[in-house]
Amino acid sequence: MSRDVNSGPAQPTEPGPALSVYDAIRMRRDVRAEFTGELVDEDRLGRILRAGHDAPSVGNTQPWDFVVVQDRNTLATFAEHVAGCRRDFADSLPPERRETFDPIKIEGIEESGTGIVVTYDPSRGGANILGRHTVDDTGVFSAVLAIQNIWLSAVAEDIGVGWVSFYDEAFLTDLVRIPAPVRPIAWLCVGPVSRFQETPDLVRFGWRDGRPLSEAVHRETF
Amino acid sequence: MSRDVNSGPAQPTEPGPALSVYDAIRMRRDVRAEFTGELVDEDRLGRILRAGHDAPSVGNTQPWDFVVVQDRNTLATFAEHVAGCRRDFADSLPPERRETFDPIKIEGIEESGTGIVVTYDPSRGGANILGRHTVDDTGVFSAVLAIQNIWLSAVAEDIGVGWVSFYDEAFLTDLVRIPAPVRPIAWLCVGPVSRFQETPDLVRFGWRDGRPLSEAVHRETF
Repeated sequence: MSRDVNSGPAQPTEPGPALSVYDAIRMRRDVRAEFTGELVDEDRLGRILRAGHDAPSVGNTQPWDFVVVQDRNTLATFAEHVAGCRRDFADSLPPERRETFDPIKIEGIEESGTGIVVTYDPSRGGANILGRHTVDDTGVFSAVLAIQNIWLSAVAEDIGVGWVSFYDEAFLTDLVRIPAPVRPIAWLCVGPVSRFQETPDLVRFGWRDGRPLSEAVHRETF
Repeated sequence: MSRDVNSGPAQPTEPGPALSVYDAIRMRRDVRAEFTGELVDEDRLGRILRAGHDAPSVGNTQPWDFVVVQDRNTLATFAEHVAGCRRDFADSLPPERRETFDPIKIEGIEESGTGIVVTYDPSRGGANILGRHTVDDTGVFSAVLAIQNIWLSAVAEDIGVGWVSFYDEAFLTDLVRIPAPVRPIAWLCVGPVSRFQETPDLVRFGWRDGRPLSEAVHRETF
């Protein structure tokens, strides 16, 4: 692992704010348009990364890493790549869906000022991983649990998170120099926000409504 | 989707407790031995399932379902299957790791009294899923985000969650009659607990220590 002079986590000096789990879950949004342009401060960033690192993981492997990206050139390069992937998706849509998609903002890479690239290392923990013997995917799932800890603790800090998935894995791997066999699984835009929208963007813009909870819950059998 | 007379979610009648995000993240454990044997009440179960359903999802597809299993025969059948998978894993270990593994409890299926089988439906949302065009895994990752919402809200409710992964997917698919192309991604043991352990089981039993946060955080490049 190569580390530059700025490496290592921010060191939070105070305990985090006390927003409740349920309020954080209710207020959380996938933020694109509401970043203020200010940079997240190191105290808050440190607490958010600590929250991610405190996630559960299969066999206690903690197979995640967090690459904090704030270099303006790197952000601009990634934003340009994502814009190309967005065009490809738009081109794949039937006309009526394309019209619905057009006004939807899909990233806030430069406006947020900070990207956290979350990665998964399948080799962490060696050959005999307790709990991955039968379901190998529980490895990468562990890194996803860390993302949700980051997302919810960010809400408590008045920090927005937007998960960008319009990218090619190979491009992002090169961009932030991720060594094999480590794999990037998310780019999170992270920064102060003016507000959290009440209604999720994809509902507001008519892309897709939510499904009632009653349809998702089954008893005894599916 | 087939539904029996007990189908549908529990209807919570009160708002949930106010435990903070940070306290929930700090207190959360992968529970095996601390289930009291009482059943989770329907109010708390309903709020926990609602929290899961309020997770973010790629393209707002909400590709998860939650099968709540409380039938004693089903729980016993699954526990027996998991015991077999545990033996297979133990047999695969070198002698010194096997000795460390032996006292570690890996499930609380019958003691918890409730299993929540979380599933992923890759067909939910149709052909043009906003955000899954480039990274298809963001579909199944969405269902994992729901699991972390369940886990943290359960801590707020004094309810323990233990993720069991010692099972064959095909066995669990048959057991709770999950139709293709839906896939089970987790069995969560859910129930009231006597306490949350301060130290994670795998650390207490000497299986694997945690990694410092400083090693997981990188700046600009990995």
